[in-house]
Amino acid sequence: MPFSERISRLKSSLIREILAAAQRPEVMSFAGGLPAEPMLPKVQWEQMPASMGQYGMSEGEPALREAIAAEARALGVPCEASQVLIVSGSQQTLDLASKLFIDPGTEVLLEAPTYLAALQAFQLFGADCVTVPLGAEGPDLVALRQRLERHKPAFAYLIPTFQNPSGVRYSEERRDAVAALLDEFGVTLIEDEPYRELVFDEGRATPLVSRLRKSSWIYTGTVSKTLLPGLRVGFLIATPDLFPHLLRLKQSADLHTNRVGQWQALQWFGSEAYRQHLAELREFYRVRRDAMQEALLEHFGELAEWNIPEGGLFFWLTLRQPLDTRTLLQPALAADVAFMPGEPFFAEPEQNLGRLRLNFSHVAPERLHEGLRRLAKVVRDAQAAEAA
Amino acid sequence: MPFSERISRLKSSLIREILAAAQRPEVMSFAGGLPAEPMLPKVQWEQMPASMGQYGMSEGEPALREAIAAEARALGVPCEASQVLIVSGSQQTLDLASKLFIDPGTEVLLEAPTYLAALQAFQLFGADCVTVPLGAEGPDLVALRQRLERHKPAFAYLIPTFQNPSGVRYSEERRDAVAALLDEFGVTLIEDEPYRELVFDEGRATPLVSRLRKSSWIYTGTVSKTLLPGLRVGFLIATPDLFPHLLRLKQSADLHTNRVGQWQALQWFGSEAYRQHLAELREFYRVRRDAMQEALLEHFGELAEWNIPEGGLFFWLTLRQPLDTRTLLQPALAADVAFMPGEPFFAEPEQNLGRLRLNFSHVAPERLHEGLRRLAKVVRDAQAAEAA
Repeated sequence: MPFSERISRLKSSLIREILAAAQRPEVMSFAGGLPAEPMLPKVQWEQMPASMGQYGMSEGEPALREAIAAEARALGVPCEASQVLIVSGSQQTLDLASKLFIDPGTEVLLEAPTYLAALQAFQLFGADCVTVPLGAEGPDLVALRQRLERHKPAFAYLIPTFQNPSGVRYSEERRDAVAALLDEFGVTLIEDEPYRELVFDEGRATPLVSRLRKSSWIYTGTVSKTLLPGLRVGFLIATPDLFPHLLRLKQSADLHTNRVGQWQALQWFGSEAYRQHLAELREFYRVRRDAMQEALLEHFGELAEWNIPEGGLFFWLTLRQPLDTRTLLQPALAADVAFMPGEPFFAEPEQNLGRLRLNFSHVAPERLHEGLRRLAKVVRDAQAAEAA
Repeated sequence: MPFSERISRLKSSLIREILAAAQRPEVMSFAGGLPAEPMLPKVQWEQMPASMGQYGMSEGEPALREAIAAEARALGVPCEASQVLIVSGSQQTLDLASKLFIDPGTEVLLEAPTYLAALQAFQLFGADCVTVPLGAEGPDLVALRQRLERHKPAFAYLIPTFQNPSGVRYSEERRDAVAALLDEFGVTLIEDEPYRELVFDEGRATPLVSRLRKSSWIYTGTVSKTLLPGLRVGFLIATPDLFPHLLRLKQSADLHTNRVGQWQALQWFGSEAYRQHLAELREFYRVRRDAMQEALLEHFGELAEWNIPEGGLFFWLTLRQPLDTRTLLQPALAADVAFMPGEPFFAEPEQNLGRLRLNFSHVAPERLHEGLRRLAKVVRDAQAAEAA
């Protein structure tokens, strides 16, 4: 069978397989990034005009583009509605950006760790990944300058706010410094912000793209973490040099994003109901995060180290005694617990053993301790077997 | 700006530009393939479970996959639900198939003419297009055998039922012969059937894929022509050797198709309401086709030749005095009439001048004569100018 060359780079998706296994109701899943079911807002459909059933524009619904541009400007992102493209979830931004920039061998600059599905999308198109270690304040600036001096990445893909998987939020100073370096070297920025609104303190740093003076950029977000992921509605905002290409690539990919989801999203953007929903969501997740922190201290205090995330959906644990956490997956699932091994979040998984990503939004509180107790036992058993 | 090589192959989309121009309410548009607004069915949302707001499976909703497999089996397509992938409109099938098969320089076999957006998608990925002329009964078999002897296409992309743009429906004999040739040369088939249900006579030829004995295949369809295009719900059915790759490519493209649209589609599949809606749709479009035929005879009888389509949404006119119909677009739009030039439906547009694709489903009957009268005048003026 003559498949394309890229199929040889198409990896078995760990996420999909773990999520599939985690669908069994008896499984306590710390694996996905799923919103908590009780926090999915009740939505109304009665007022939707029949015209939403017809074909729409590849750009997206004009009113939704206006609403998103207004919200972005309020965040400090300089943009017009004409720069907004509605996409079928922000995963599609990664596909469109890959098509726009990546030939086999094209260098791209990524955080280490970075979002697994982005890494896979870029690698599918043949990207060579150049990585910068991520610390508690953001990327290592010495390493970043060194990479930019030695490489010519087509873009830098960064998740500065409650990074997936690490939970890191870049500091104000680091944001300025990273933006200045990208400007200095003329590197395009793709800034991915699905978690910005899931914030548990008062911190409100403006996006990196708002700090750029020269570089081109794509800023992408979604309603999946704050409203309903099942709608598959996300957006990207791009500088005018990139937008027309992204628009044509969008049309070629799926003509346009579904209009019923776009209409529903529009009902929420900028509304008082949305502000209230977000406030409730933050409080709900903050309580779950605190419960997770407490349970982690009890079950993983001796096994791992971690920072408390100030937003987002994940704890990122580093085992004190590293081992390949992918080997823990089978015994964990056998014990009805799912988690995300850390290795696939790195372009060089073999050099980065011993992290676990644990979601705190999805498991019900009454099963939290039992789930973590079982997972800790799986870790201990594996470490004991390795020591033996 | 270091774009990927494929961006040099990204054509300005004529469809999108014409459709954008055709959005002006005063424009009489024969350009798109839009369902008639009055025939968009009224849909209900009250019963949709809240769980449709959550993330779903990349494969699609299990019940919808079952329903589509059952319909396909009733058509003669041998398949199980495990072979069904729900996609974000059947345009996405073209994107996924391109990713699966096409490297720069990969040969693909197409009808001449073929669906413009498929041609563009394949060319974006770098396909070399090998084409077979399409006659009233289907592809020229001598040409097809000759192409298969001289080339090694990764797949054949065919639209055997009410082809877009030509309206051709392959005869029974031609279906058998084409399938036998694909089997003989071991060529994978992508069969695109958006128009199968829009049939105006009793003809019911089974799909090509049901006639294959050895070749791999992808069969793709959509609810866009029979239900609501705004839902962006289509499907593909693939042989088991192809399915796992397509599934991973789908996940990488947009995780999964929106679930609200999938749920809505599921309410219709196999229902009595759907059967009745399809019957009404066929009658409605048959009347519009007949009105179009009558009006065409009046205004284009001296200018062009055409066959009466037995299904689908288009008339395909061949001018008796050929000219590049792309040059007619500006004067037509200036006269508030939109149509699709025929040249972009060919891999070699310059060698195929003088066709027009005219949609008959969208223009209201009371504007039909005026629209065609103006369009005929644009053609006559251009021919007179060329002769002068």
